[in-house]
Amino acid sequence: MELFEALKTRRSIRKFTDEPVSDDELKTVLEAAMMAPSAGNAQPWQFIVVTEQEKLEKIGSINPYAAMAARAPVSILVCGDLSLEKFPGYWVQDCSAAVENMLLAIHGLGLGAVWTGVHPLKERIKGFRDLLGLPEQIQPLAFLVIGHPDQQLKSESRYREDRIHHNQWEG
Amino acid sequence: MELFEALKTRRSIRKFTDEPVSDDELKTVLEAAMMAPSAGNAQPWQFIVVTEQEKLEKIGSINPYAAMAARAPVSILVCGDLSLEKFPGYWVQDCSAAVENMLLAIHGLGLGAVWTGVHPLKERIKGFRDLLGLPEQIQPLAFLVIGHPDQQLKSESRYREDRIHHNQWEG
Repeated sequence: MELFEALKTRRSIRKFTDEPVSDDELKTVLEAAMMAPSAGNAQPWQFIVVTEQEKLEKIGSINPYAAMAARAPVSILVCGDLSLEKFPGYWVQDCSAAVENMLLAIHGLGLGAVWTGVHPLKERIKGFRDLLGLPEQIQPLAFLVIGHPDQQLKSESRYREDRIHHNQWEG
Repeated sequence: MELFEALKTRRSIRKFTDEPVSDDELKTVLEAAMMAPSAGNAQPWQFIVVTEQEKLEKIGSINPYAAMAARAPVSILVCGDLSLEKFPGYWVQDCSAAVENMLLAIHGLGLGAVWTGVHPLKERIKGFRDLLGLPEQIQPLAFLVIGHPDQQLKSESRYREDRIHHNQWEG
């Protein structure tokens, strides 16, 4: 897929078919994640690939907006690893860039995904920490539910001239 | 440019030629930014395009790692707008996704850029706030210096198998 087509047509996908996601596809998505820029090129990220149905069934009790994970072939929890930071405080930005790369790669593969929020909500952080046995330095940021799309969403431009300012804030 | 080529070959560019960046190119970059996902699709972002040489000369005193802005045709300060958030606390992630889209679009156009960090460093935030007249609800996140690359950087895979875990944290 062409880059600008990918940027313009990616949408959040929340309904998936039963078709599995292959190991090669997952590797492509995770490599895209790890090509993201990071402060000091620290790459302060860790990825938990979740495929166990028993665990996926419990996601909805951590975050109801991610309950569709129980009906998707695979999900990935993207985490910051505080022990890897060179410039403390940038892991959220670094990992968010990695997530955006993943969403684009997923779309480019013909798959679909939705980014569900974890950080900074304390209850969701604790829920994922308990479910997946995360130690203190591993900070869950975002939970991506991934699969083959079972919905077609049109894409419209979100470009807004009024969000652009020149050389100073213009209210 | 093909999506996966863009994901794999994007690098931070810090040296630029004198060639200007066109208004069409800037619009393409800003539209890519605004196509990013955001919590509740709130799109809580604002963009300050900086081209005034007098202001660009002052960037180095706010952040020495961004001093090359004085020798680049254009820079963009990406800000969160707290008044636009639907789910408070997600603007850093939303705006970081927008920045990553911008970096990919810039690369796809044959331009180059570097993401220099602002948030969460209080002094840099104050520096940009004072320089560009930002009101309280406008939170500067990242400052992108953009131009035509005057350096060639090879890209190597950053893929690391040891950052991938299955169904639980495995140390």
